[in-house]
Amino acid sequence: MYIHQVAAYLPAEIITNEHFTRLNGLSHEWITERTGIQTRRKAAPGENTNTMALEATRRVLAAAPAFPAAEVDLIVGATYTPHDTIYTLAHAVQRELNVGEIPVVSISSACSSLLNAIEIVEGYFAMGKARRALVVVSEHNTAYNNEQDTMAGHLWGDGAAALLLTPERLSENDLDVRTVLTGGVANVGKADVAVTLKPVEKGIVMPFGKDVFINACQYMARVTQQVLERNNLSVEDVTYLIPHQANLRITKNVLQQLGLPEDRAVSNIQDLGNTGCAGAAIALADTWALLKPGNQIVITVFGGGYSYGAMLLAR
Amino acid sequence: MYIHQVAAYLPAEIITNEHFTRLNGLSHEWITERTGIQTRRKAAPGENTNTMALEATRRVLAAAPAFPAAEVDLIVGATYTPHDTIYTLAHAVQRELNVGEIPVVSISSACSSLLNAIEIVEGYFAMGKARRALVVVSEHNTAYNNEQDTMAGHLWGDGAAALLLTPERLSENDLDVRTVLTGGVANVGKADVAVTLKPVEKGIVMPFGKDVFINACQYMARVTQQVLERNNLSVEDVTYLIPHQANLRITKNVLQQLGLPEDRAVSNIQDLGNTGCAGAAIALADTWALLKPGNQIVITVFGGGYSYGAMLLAR
Repeated sequence: MYIHQVAAYLPAEIITNEHFTRLNGLSHEWITERTGIQTRRKAAPGENTNTMALEATRRVLAAAPAFPAAEVDLIVGATYTPHDTIYTLAHAVQRELNVGEIPVVSISSACSSLLNAIEIVEGYFAMGKARRALVVVSEHNTAYNNEQDTMAGHLWGDGAAALLLTPERLSENDLDVRTVLTGGVANVGKADVAVTLKPVEKGIVMPFGKDVFINACQYMARVTQQVLERNNLSVEDVTYLIPHQANLRITKNVLQQLGLPEDRAVSNIQDLGNTGCAGAAIALADTWALLKPGNQIVITVFGGGYSYGAMLLAR
Repeated sequence: MYIHQVAAYLPAEIITNEHFTRLNGLSHEWITERTGIQTRRKAAPGENTNTMALEATRRVLAAAPAFPAAEVDLIVGATYTPHDTIYTLAHAVQRELNVGEIPVVSISSACSSLLNAIEIVEGYFAMGKARRALVVVSEHNTAYNNEQDTMAGHLWGDGAAALLLTPERLSENDLDVRTVLTGGVANVGKADVAVTLKPVEKGIVMPFGKDVFINACQYMARVTQQVLERNNLSVEDVTYLIPHQANLRITKNVLQQLGLPEDRAVSNIQDLGNTGCAGAAIALADTWALLKPGNQIVITVFGGGYSYGAMLLAR
């Protein structure tokens, strides 16, 4: 399986830490020290999970002349911040592309959904039921976030990304997806209460951030080791590590556990905050132009719920 | 692929049509004539999509000694009426079963999600990444429904079902899943506005019921024919047709298009209303004890968004 192209969409408005200082007294220094976050993007009125998914889709298809929109035969969307749970982001993308009678579904495994979506695509390729797949990850965190919440209100940002996948190589720049691994671990720790988004009751809350932190660090490091072992590689072989963009301290902890220098990680949390399941895909889009033959990339994610995943990519 | 067992959970409270007569003046006769619905179930306070999923899971596992909970290695949940989009119903089930580090994901393709979930399982089986899968469909429509809505407030009911799937036969009563087909058709008609559930803005609405009706009839009949043709069968070979339980008039229209007598269809809409993606699975659970060797069953679904699917099962 190959990733042929990836593209991101970010809304224009930039929210600085000073916004939260004014709202609830959290200082720029306090936020930066604990999370690494300096700014995050906020969707404009009228923008939502579906519109951002459409923008990312337009961009990825515009960058991929070898992958015509008319040939898309599978769409998997992912979000935990849905605009519509019936006319989902995957359905909105299908309508835009005007390709009918192909499997279309949206999923959530919280912040780890990018890898669940790619593993679902891997299954359709294995069955021979699809050959040109579009994965779209999109989060409208600010629609469900209480900015006043001093525990987590300052963490979240909006954004989307889209990826084109094929079972066979289309171009020499395609990334070979060597291994995808996903796992739920809802049975550990405070998975049932640590991060929740109950649309009828309230928005995103994270009352047990420490439990999330500990498990995110542990599982992202471990599943990275697992995908490397399956490919007889060691951490030194990793050109870029792209972790879920939840907190710069989590990224540093994972690097430390793996024995990797800080410059090996790709990070957008400083600028974008936690963009949920879109974060790692946006980071891959930003890294795309830097990739060279022989490079090996690991994407590793962890989400509330809890769920984790990792994927080894090779150019 | 085989369905080894299926079980349903329904909340206790029964809501009659007279409830809506008192609320908004719709008579029992008016509702029955247009929809076939006489009663529907309503989740109790404290019940939700996750708790109903747990109840259905307990029941299906209790009925399946050959499929121990500890062997579950894939959980796919489905709902468009989520209790929690982060700690999803699939994660809640994982925590209850206490099986760790297996793929866990929840999906939505609206009312057609049962078949999307089963097709995703089929993919994991094809990859050899799972051998004991649990699919759980659960809808808490009343949490998102405006009862006062005279267009669709009287349609919805709550309920859940769980299915156990394996790549090989475990018992002679297992149903052989001969073919699964799913398709999104968000590009036709008023798919973008006909049925929506936008958690931030409002609950379930169906302002273009006629467009849904027309497309549901058309696609459920067509995809039924498609799965039969792929297996060199004709409609006469179908012992039971289990359509999505949206409206008794839709079921009758589909039967008429196919040239099947009315007693060939399994129907719970009279008692349960539209239980979303759980409806056809609940109907399969109710039919389970009647099935005999040589029986052939077609489940055919259609959902807002739009999406459709069909599955041929054989005992």
